[in-house]
Amino acid sequence: MNTRQRLDAMRARQPAPAGMAMRTAPASSSLPNWPQRVSFCPPGMQERGGECVSGVCAPRVHPLIDAARNAELAEYERTVRQRFDAIVPALREIAAQQHEAGFEQRAQQIARERLGFELPQDVLADAWVTTLDMRTLYGHSVLQTYHALARDFTARWNGHAEAEAMHRFFIECGFHEIDISPCADGRLKGLLQFVLRLPYQAVRRRKSYAGAMFDVELNVRQWTETELRRFREGLPTLSDAGTRYLKIAVYHFSSSDPHHEGCAAHGSDDRKAAQAAIDRLAAFRTAIENGFCCGASVATLLIGVDTDNDAIKVHVPDASGEMSTECFVDNLAVYHQTTGMAASEARWRLGAAIDEAVREQGRSAPEAGMRRLIERLLTNNLSQIDYVCAQHNGRYADIGHAERFINIGDGFDEVHLRNLAYFGHLYTIEEGAADMDVGIKIFSGLNVARGLPIPIAIHYRYDEQVPGSRERAVARCRRIKAAIAARYPTLAKDGLLFCGMTVQGKAPGSAQEEVSDIDTNSHGH
Amino acid sequence: MNTRQRLDAMRARQPAPAGMAMRTAPASSSLPNWPQRVSFCPPGMQERGGECVSGVCAPRVHPLIDAARNAELAEYERTVRQRFDAIVPALREIAAQQHEAGFEQRAQQIARERLGFELPQDVLADAWVTTLDMRTLYGHSVLQTYHALARDFTARWNGHAEAEAMHRFFIECGFHEIDISPCADGRLKGLLQFVLRLPYQAVRRRKSYAGAMFDVELNVRQWTETELRRFREGLPTLSDAGTRYLKIAVYHFSSSDPHHEGCAAHGSDDRKAAQAAIDRLAAFRTAIENGFCCGASVATLLIGVDTDNDAIKVHVPDASGEMSTECFVDNLAVYHQTTGMAASEARWRLGAAIDEAVREQGRSAPEAGMRRLIERLLTNNLSQIDYVCAQHNGRYADIGHAERFINIGDGFDEVHLRNLAYFGHLYTIEEGAADMDVGIKIFSGLNVARGLPIPIAIHYRYDEQVPGSRERAVARCRRIKAAIAARYPTLAKDGLLFCGMTVQGKAPGSAQEEVSDIDTNSHGH
Repeated sequence: MNTRQRLDAMRARQPAPAGMAMRTAPASSSLPNWPQRVSFCPPGMQERGGECVSGVCAPRVHPLIDAARNAELAEYERTVRQRFDAIVPALREIAAQQHEAGFEQRAQQIARERLGFELPQDVLADAWVTTLDMRTLYGHSVLQTYHALARDFTARWNGHAEAEAMHRFFIECGFHEIDISPCADGRLKGLLQFVLRLPYQAVRRRKSYAGAMFDVELNVRQWTETELRRFREGLPTLSDAGTRYLKIAVYHFSSSDPHHEGCAAHGSDDRKAAQAAIDRLAAFRTAIENGFCCGASVATLLIGVDTDNDAIKVHVPDASGEMSTECFVDNLAVYHQTTGMAASEARWRLGAAIDEAVREQGRSAPEAGMRRLIERLLTNNLSQIDYVCAQHNGRYADIGHAERFINIGDGFDEVHLRNLAYFGHLYTIEEGAADMDVGIKIFSGLNVARGLPIPIAIHYRYDEQVPGSRERAVARCRRIKAAIAARYPTLAKDGLLFCGMTVQGKAPGSAQEEVSDIDTNSHGH
Repeated sequence: MNTRQRLDAMRARQPAPAGMAMRTAPASSSLPNWPQRVSFCPPGMQERGGECVSGVCAPRVHPLIDAARNAELAEYERTVRQRFDAIVPALREIAAQQHEAGFEQRAQQIARERLGFELPQDVLADAWVTTLDMRTLYGHSVLQTYHALARDFTARWNGHAEAEAMHRFFIECGFHEIDISPCADGRLKGLLQFVLRLPYQAVRRRKSYAGAMFDVELNVRQWTETELRRFREGLPTLSDAGTRYLKIAVYHFSSSDPHHEGCAAHGSDDRKAAQAAIDRLAAFRTAIENGFCCGASVATLLIGVDTDNDAIKVHVPDASGEMSTECFVDNLAVYHQTTGMAASEARWRLGAAIDEAVREQGRSAPEAGMRRLIERLLTNNLSQIDYVCAQHNGRYADIGHAERFINIGDGFDEVHLRNLAYFGHLYTIEEGAADMDVGIKIFSGLNVARGLPIPIAIHYRYDEQVPGSRERAVARCRRIKAAIAARYPTLAKDGLLFCGMTVQGKAPGSAQEEVSDIDTNSHGH
């Protein structure tokens, strides 16, 4: 078995099915067909203490990492994974008892104790007629687990001060609003909280699209809203402050399996993914510059994420804001170079990496504010690289897709974790069909192939201050659900689509409200 | 046969099928089953010179009408109708010759001479195999007729000065932007040019919806765009000018058959239609007032149109901008009262009608600028009432639907005429299904019942200054066409949907560009 075959065998086990333990490192105990010899660690991995560990992960301490936050995130990841991983065993146990006396009470008791919520009573009650509808129970459980986590998070969140500080930092760098569009791929679902270590409240606009191909016209409208608020209210900065709107696009790639586990929307070709994002960013900037007078412009930035280890590449804009696929700082290399250094030396090295990237390509240096932001992003990401070393031996076991559910519509604020959900930002299936199709394709492999339904969380925010906004968000949920069923009729017929619907006010701290299928208030418009 | 039965018999002949002469007044010659006795004129009509003429139409001259413009409009209406009315006879003649030698050349000759354009060569060439595909020829001819008229109009239009003057007048009244949402009903397709006599270039935003139920969120975005331009560019007024954005909703009703020929979206109940529009306007105003600080607000106005005779009711806002279904000026009454008066007396009478409407309902008077605008709209509409008297005996023969085609997407700027097209402003069939369904229902009666296809003109504007905008508009056309076929599969299968697609730049004077079915440039995104 050569290296290639070993990698293939490894990939064949991936993606880890939802419900299976996913933190399992590629250690011998969990890989019966993985030989015990160190020479069998895949390329880039080294044997250390009986496990394959990425060569990047030094046994030395890195001076710039946030150890406390890493510990918090490890606990958070463990909690989230455990909650989802509990679903399949609990449902298996319930299934085994479906023909016993007192089944319904017993099933609810198991669900409460092990999952933290109840199962739909009517599904349990109907079990005696034919057999227990495990698809519905599974779909229900996945989405309820998510909702329970979101509620816990909302109740405990106390990061206002941190978000506020980050927002001030952005303004000091010259950016009054940060707008990020990553790829819809679930492996980027931890982008803000983990990969970039940015409080999500500090990044007001977050919209994912397959291939990071964001909607230029929508973005022009959002820029317009932001700018009007500056003129009318002087928030977040005065209109003459000289700050700009910063649009960041985030593509992704896989260093260990570049031709298969990169971005599907761009044929797993990272250069193509990067170029497409640069073109889209340039189109947005041109739209603003041409459409508005008086020197209107926006700043743009491109970031690539290696989804194997969460290391980023930051494409450094030149003095006029232009970017190239070739001119970037590879933060994995920076991590490798700076580990074991003194903090001040590591910081200097990180800054030097930006200068070198620019110099090698014969380009001009970025503006001071942009440079400062890039330094912060690279520094933040060092903690994440270290985290992946500590928690995942420097390379995720699930280098491929292993999402738990699809999130359609507006994104969830509350829970962020790599491979938690495939997220497509869309308002109609008609326009968002490409994003939806990619999600369904991923889950056809992950879930449908195993007989499990695709849990789909349809979620829209509404504006409490706009009359009728909530009703329209509710109607949109139902319309989207119907459109999904119409687009995938075979899956729908076979009970392999499980759609949950929620709406949520725009005000911070608003709770998610579940939406029922039936319109109980259909009088009037 | 009582009055009701006569009216029913009259309605049974209506709507006039597309392709039939539609200017036919209810005169004896064209109504074989219409008795020759004057007592048989329907209620509200009187015999005059052997024809039934509306009692409102005085034989005296009205002092405030624009006779020159009325003559121009009559010529315009005649031209447009003649062009459409030529289609069916020309196609009949072509059909009759389909098995003769030299058919293709002969058919093209007839089409060129009588319709002004050529027919699709492949359809003619295929005729010998089975039979001539008249549905395709009909759909093609209707849309080509429209396009030819649009080209003529663009080439000859010279109304810039007039539009500019009207825009200045709006600003003098305190309104820097006028945004009109009428019902999608084709009987309002002449709203600006005929009913209100407003140059369409002076009304920047025109979006029709079934029941005038405009999209509040979209409107908030458009308000935002307008306001930002004022702040950034001082256009059309400086941000501190104290002018406002005026949103006008337009509902409609039928005075001679109120329970059948009113607005279908509101069950032909004019009070319900008016109240729904008032509520939607109030929601928009609330959204602006709640969503933006510093006294942000908008002005709103509600207008009702009697689609039998184009007379308007203007609902007079009180001093705080509130409106009621009950407080309006009935311009048909004003016309009746003022005909034969001296111009100054008629103007005084028109102003007094506003005061009386307010006083009768015990409400406060509108702001001076709003009052001035209302006076202008009422005065303008007097010309249209007079026009309908002169051209249509004071009541349209086609009091019901008689649209020639459906216009979906962005509205056409170039051609406006009552009952020309059903216009639904929408970006997706998924969201705009209600508007589309109403259109299809109307045309199922008008066309499908006679074996004719429903011509659908899909039209989107793009921004020449935004990279990729044209490509996205083209893609949207194709997506909408596919979505229409998917929503109405039986009609599609039977060849009863004929979709044409056009895109057009946003810059004034841009030409419509036809979009082909096939994507000949599908490389890249």
